[in-house]
Amino acid sequence: MKKTKKKIKAAILIIGNEVLSGRTQDLNVSFISNWLNINCGISVDEVRIIPDVEKKIIYNVLDLSKKFNYTFTTGGIGPTHDDITALSVSKAFKVKYEFNTEAYLILEKYYGKKNFNEGRKKMAKMPKGSSLIYNPSSAAPGFKIKNVLCLPGVPSILKSMMGNLKFFLIKGAVTISSSINLQTVESYIALELGKLQNKYLKKVDIGSYPFFRLGKVGVSVVLRSSDTPQLKSCLKKLNKIIQNKKIKLFKNI
Amino acid sequence: MKKTKKKIKAAILIIGNEVLSGRTQDLNVSFISNWLNINCGISVDEVRIIPDVEKKIIYNVLDLSKKFNYTFTTGGIGPTHDDITALSVSKAFKVKYEFNTEAYLILEKYYGKKNFNEGRKKMAKMPKGSSLIYNPSSAAPGFKIKNVLCLPGVPSILKSMMGNLKFFLIKGAVTISSSINLQTVESYIALELGKLQNKYLKKVDIGSYPFFRLGKVGVSVVLRSSDTPQLKSCLKKLNKIIQNKKIKLFKNI
Repeated sequence: MKKTKKKIKAAILIIGNEVLSGRTQDLNVSFISNWLNINCGISVDEVRIIPDVEKKIIYNVLDLSKKFNYTFTTGGIGPTHDDITALSVSKAFKVKYEFNTEAYLILEKYYGKKNFNEGRKKMAKMPKGSSLIYNPSSAAPGFKIKNVLCLPGVPSILKSMMGNLKFFLIKGAVTISSSINLQTVESYIALELGKLQNKYLKKVDIGSYPFFRLGKVGVSVVLRSSDTPQLKSCLKKLNKIIQNKKIKLFKNI
Repeated sequence: MKKTKKKIKAAILIIGNEVLSGRTQDLNVSFISNWLNINCGISVDEVRIIPDVEKKIIYNVLDLSKKFNYTFTTGGIGPTHDDITALSVSKAFKVKYEFNTEAYLILEKYYGKKNFNEGRKKMAKMPKGSSLIYNPSSAAPGFKIKNVLCLPGVPSILKSMMGNLKFFLIKGAVTISSSINLQTVESYIALELGKLQNKYLKKVDIGSYPFFRLGKVGVSVVLRSSDTPQLKSCLKKLNKIIQNKKIKLFKNI
């Protein structure tokens, strides 16, 4: 895997009416985002969820692929009429939508010649010039064209394919994070956190997230940075604030 | 609540580094989307997740508020330095970011004069001309300005505020849905579903979603429409296909 010290930023484009309608709870965003950061030092900077509508897919693929180093799409690469991602991406990049010979052979072998019907054949069609992202769980491959990587929507299949993404990606600076869970409310520490953020502007990103658990309120303070010494120094100052303000920590979270 | 027979479309803008980084699993999209459809006949047509960055909030608020009837934002209206939604929305619409007198009084009463510190006061600041969306669980109100409605990110607080949205929204045509879970794979019914979709083009939206459960594979076929007779007629034809192809139903889902 090639490396760079630059920040590499990605977008995720979730394609699917079922997520927009609220019928299906998306689980892919958090998985892909965590995986990309830990394994590739790539941070996800924008996510969009759009319906299975050709012109919307075309618009968003072009828009996101211009703005980010990589765009990952999920959904719409199966065998049915509402699976229009591969066709739409072909149109977006103005290349032919055609059978990929390697994908065709993989699928023919997987299903057997006799059972290789129209729907299954459709999964071998993709933009001309695509590279395959292999699928160890259900054969039908994803594909990469330019800086757009197209993955399936079913979380278990998607997860099984992530390892193969490494062949296509340039590794950036990994973001490390450290979090502390406090027995307090946000407004009790808001002023000090604001000052601390100003001190570490553009070096450490400080987030504050209230939560309720087991009938108690608390605040997670999360520090994120690609610079370990800066993160440690910021964490030290945060601990001093916590001590000075006599805030107790939450245990067992 | 005012009504129209037109389709009313909305966008959701999730503002928060914690969702993008994968640290926090978003639960608001499916809740808001379901709630809006059932209670207001409003369908969510696009979702974006963006970081706590002022210029990105401004760009997306303006872009989405032009494209959709309503835009709902979640997150970034708390007391800490990373809560910049209200300020950014003010800048987007070029109006003053100032104390809302009613919100100030609500919060002062809730916390008591003695404990009404800077962080808490910040939650009373919002774009000039906003209407308040009351918060029965933790007092700090959301707000509506033009066609943008700003809500908190914590799911339990957000849920408690949804009822108050009805005062601001025009009710559209409710989308009804019907789903059948089949003991089959998508490619076995892809051809027939495609033909059925062509027959009901723009009247019924047919989605096909594979799933794995308890070691078995299945397909959910979901029909969605705002026209009940069309939905029923389409469902009848779908049942005929299922019968002809001798597909068994999944029970207990």
